[in-house]
Amino acid sequence: MIRFSVLKWVPPFARGSVKEFRVRWALEEAGLPYEEEVLTPEDQNGDAYRARQIFGQVPAYEEDGLAMCESGAILLHVAEKSDTLMPRDAQGRARTLQWVFAAVTSVQPAVDQVTALDFFYAQEEWAKLRRPSAEEFLLRRLGQLSARLEGREWLEERFTAGDLMMVTVLRDLRHTDILTRFPPLAVYVKRAEARPAFQKALADHTALYAEAAKAEAAE
Amino acid sequence: MIRFSVLKWVPPFARGSVKEFRVRWALEEAGLPYEEEVLTPEDQNGDAYRARQIFGQVPAYEEDGLAMCESGAILLHVAEKSDTLMPRDAQGRARTLQWVFAAVTSVQPAVDQVTALDFFYAQEEWAKLRRPSAEEFLLRRLGQLSARLEGREWLEERFTAGDLMMVTVLRDLRHTDILTRFPPLAVYVKRAEARPAFQKALADHTALYAEAAKAEAAE
Repeated sequence: MIRFSVLKWVPPFARGSVKEFRVRWALEEAGLPYEEEVLTPEDQNGDAYRARQIFGQVPAYEEDGLAMCESGAILLHVAEKSDTLMPRDAQGRARTLQWVFAAVTSVQPAVDQVTALDFFYAQEEWAKLRRPSAEEFLLRRLGQLSARLEGREWLEERFTAGDLMMVTVLRDLRHTDILTRFPPLAVYVKRAEARPAFQKALADHTALYAEAAKAEAAE
Repeated sequence: MIRFSVLKWVPPFARGSVKEFRVRWALEEAGLPYEEEVLTPEDQNGDAYRARQIFGQVPAYEEDGLAMCESGAILLHVAEKSDTLMPRDAQGRARTLQWVFAAVTSVQPAVDQVTALDFFYAQEEWAKLRRPSAEEFLLRRLGQLSARLEGREWLEERFTAGDLMMVTVLRDLRHTDILTRFPPLAVYVKRAEARPAFQKALADHTALYAEAAKAEAAE
């Protein structure tokens, strides 16, 4: 049985962006059943969990005695089990690896620069001074990615785990209008979001926070 | 034959940190021969290279008709070929993936925040205001990693590609005294640097810039 950790509560801006969502979506694409291990803040910061995940992050993943963490690593591990996530030929595998890493090391840092300024440091003087150059760098990267996707449905000839990872990274910009400036990227994200596995995963992820969202709406 | 791209010139602070070094070190560990494809700035920004590497980064990697990029992806691809870089059992493979991703997505962003401030923005007003919180976050992450390495030679029971990647990330702090505050990390980096494959790779990488370094020293 597959089991991964999720957070019992996260602030509204993080819903849909918690990194367990990547694993959940991948497991839905692969058609593999799973259980959630719901962590309270006390669990997350406790010694037992820190022994499994040294930074206290989610997800931690277990499967028949195998234990691992880091969403990118788990995504590739799950991709090994499913042709839907990774082609079987050497070139197809290599390109899947390539785009997963491109997403988390060449695009995500540029996205995170901007989202961190917006969500964590918006009132800081330095953040206001920094934001233009952070956005400029992000726009350059997105322009390069957008050119790749011009006239393509996916980063390669077919959907892979690389698209899954890239889309989760791009969705972190949904509090801005930045993607609307790159129509190939906006359409690409919508195409991925229309996949039944994405829909199921997002509904289940969001359900974790349904009660909290109701209470917030009533405030 | 294996071939990967390298840069004909980089500024002194980047020597030893260019991401092709990760691949070079991995190939030395695996005992696989390779060739360098030396890129001028014109090559790097030309359409032909951008078609292979959309962000214009190094390394791009080729092997018997297979083509890919992103140093993390190439590292895992090479690790598939060598027991020195990745154990063959499922748990060992999973942990290798885990630590490669931990290095580039949980540690590298914290390191890059600080190195970017030091190398690219040192004179900016916002960078001076930002640096204390960036360093504080980095020290927290390094403390968590250091606790993991207390009493261990490597992140798992033996050296893997995860250690290789983690060490390349930590070495990016060599312009600071930060690692000396975490003796388990300082010793870990030295242990990795003592490996013959590391020594060979660093010598060959540095040789690319020997003439430039000589000219700089004469200035």
